[in-house]
Amino acid sequence: MQTFSDLDTPSRILLGPGPSMAHPRVLRAMAQPLVGHLDPKFLELMAEIQTMLRLVFQTENELTIPMSGTGSAAMEASVCNFIEPGDEIIIGVNGYFGERLCDMAGRYGAVVRRIEKPWGQVFTPAEVEAELQQKPAKIVALVHAETSTGALQPMEGMGQLAHQHGALLLIDTVTSLGGVPVKIDEWGVDIAYSGTQKCLSCPPGLSPLTISPRAREVLHRRKSPVKNWYLDLTMIERYWGTGTRMYHHTAPISMNYALREALRLVVEEGLESRFARHRRLAEMLWNGLESLGFEMHVPAEHRLPPLTTPRLPAGLENEAQIRRQLLDIYNIEIAGGLGQLGGQVWRIGLMGYSARPENVLLLLSALKELM
Amino acid sequence: MQTFSDLDTPSRILLGPGPSMAHPRVLRAMAQPLVGHLDPKFLELMAEIQTMLRLVFQTENELTIPMSGTGSAAMEASVCNFIEPGDEIIIGVNGYFGERLCDMAGRYGAVVRRIEKPWGQVFTPAEVEAELQQKPAKIVALVHAETSTGALQPMEGMGQLAHQHGALLLIDTVTSLGGVPVKIDEWGVDIAYSGTQKCLSCPPGLSPLTISPRAREVLHRRKSPVKNWYLDLTMIERYWGTGTRMYHHTAPISMNYALREALRLVVEEGLESRFARHRRLAEMLWNGLESLGFEMHVPAEHRLPPLTTPRLPAGLENEAQIRRQLLDIYNIEIAGGLGQLGGQVWRIGLMGYSARPENVLLLLSALKELM
Repeated sequence: MQTFSDLDTPSRILLGPGPSMAHPRVLRAMAQPLVGHLDPKFLELMAEIQTMLRLVFQTENELTIPMSGTGSAAMEASVCNFIEPGDEIIIGVNGYFGERLCDMAGRYGAVVRRIEKPWGQVFTPAEVEAELQQKPAKIVALVHAETSTGALQPMEGMGQLAHQHGALLLIDTVTSLGGVPVKIDEWGVDIAYSGTQKCLSCPPGLSPLTISPRAREVLHRRKSPVKNWYLDLTMIERYWGTGTRMYHHTAPISMNYALREALRLVVEEGLESRFARHRRLAEMLWNGLESLGFEMHVPAEHRLPPLTTPRLPAGLENEAQIRRQLLDIYNIEIAGGLGQLGGQVWRIGLMGYSARPENVLLLLSALKELM
Repeated sequence: MQTFSDLDTPSRILLGPGPSMAHPRVLRAMAQPLVGHLDPKFLELMAEIQTMLRLVFQTENELTIPMSGTGSAAMEASVCNFIEPGDEIIIGVNGYFGERLCDMAGRYGAVVRRIEKPWGQVFTPAEVEAELQQKPAKIVALVHAETSTGALQPMEGMGQLAHQHGALLLIDTVTSLGGVPVKIDEWGVDIAYSGTQKCLSCPPGLSPLTISPRAREVLHRRKSPVKNWYLDLTMIERYWGTGTRMYHHTAPISMNYALREALRLVVEEGLESRFARHRRLAEMLWNGLESLGFEMHVPAEHRLPPLTTPRLPAGLENEAQIRRQLLDIYNIEIAGGLGQLGGQVWRIGLMGYSARPENVLLLLSALKELM
């Protein structure tokens, strides 16, 4: 019979689009023995996680929770809880994750109205307004941080615009939360989802979600049950709520330990310092890459500090081989392009605990060696 | 501003319906630093996890994987991938989780045909056959181990019966996998799901799933896309498959480390020894409870060793208080009844690493003190 050795994993320096490196304190927290998912102590921890998530999302939304799956689970929860068959949703598609939102919304019976931009560009309020003026919609969905392109969508004015036309504003903050400002209340965002394994530097396994009172009313006025049982917020809000805890599913206890510790680290560092660190190290990376002859795919004004997409120089035919050497020789992970940017860019992440000067210097030095 | 203390959790002895206690080796594995979810090393670990899951499920099914959510996620995957609107499903309802299957299947548009038994009893092949003879169905679903009642459904003959009538057989093994025999291939089971946090003694966060070639053909012949994106096996099978790995969602890396170690512990102990241990300790518990005046809710021949449901003696009005004292004084968690058995039984789990003589003796001694 096959035998299975002790777990022996290489010491990777994770500079791809996620997961980022988890802080040692987060790893230690995760290894604490379990308590039950209805234990009074666990209910306390849940409340603390909610408080800290609200702080990071910069929101007062009561319904602010980690969903029990990786980023895509909260993405799907953002769609399936608010879409009923025939509902119209306007989705800004300027990368892979906008495409995915269209796919998900279509499966739940939405009438999907795409507005499109080349991958790497962002939308203006006027472009969104033009579509809303054509015809109202129930939801406007934008990707705040496109992990496939490295573009950061400006959000100012978007919430007001959506609300003027009777729509909810939904945004993807998977690669922004904890790394760049995410101002849910100030921007008038109604539904936002994220992942733990990017700028929060917690292992993948949970996905933060925040829902405004306005969106919650829409949820409660649904005519049909939510098709997706596991992600049904009408039940989950009673498990995470303040009253009697209704059993829904078993929460991933250890992952919640980890997320709590990751959020504590954010609180200790302070949001503004944390954003400044991500910005400072991204600039160090951008400058270094430019010195090596790379051009950035995204113009400076819309560049997403946690995720950089250098364009591959003309004539570089062995990009996958260079990435493999980075991994094999120096234990550094970066990623290739996704979707239509495959073979055109790399994706280099500087997120959370990965965003340290030693990692940037090492990557730049290694690239200099290999290219 | 609110401050958040170091994570400080009590040392619980988890004897409820799950999570069970995680083995220290599993906790240590989980705390290993992360690798990327497409790292060659992680792909190796995935293959090892699949090999060991097949061993525990006693199956050759290629599509045997952990879904990226707790038990309910694989439960929903078992339904949403195989049901299209209008499909008929026969569901054996003899407890809470049979009810939940009805709820999930209905959401995806199934015509749900319930066969019912009082909570704590099991179905005979003749009862299932009678329903199939009325009218064929696409799926017959049974709960192998009802976590709400403590009943173990005999499976002999059920697969053959379903197949004779052109149906797939789907079973819930959440509280049986790794604790009592689960013979997927021998029983002719087509779809089975479980959880990691019961007899596998791994923290909650993943849910094992196995799909027979016959069920996989049904999946591939679907006329409509799977409504649930996160659990869509037509995409997930390409991420866990043997060919080129297609990115779908980010797998929970640390949870997979934990599951791999938990499965290694099962392999080291050996399935038969492990089943014998669960059986031996359950009998020690049953005898002890009977000495204290409890009657078991489930007749001996259908009793599920990992989960025992003693009936509360007449006149015991403070059952919740006794459970609270067990927790507060002795750090022992057991659970109350669920659904229609609320207030009538307790649920005492002896699963995986929780199933040790010292835990049984302590619980019995503590109950003797408190009652």
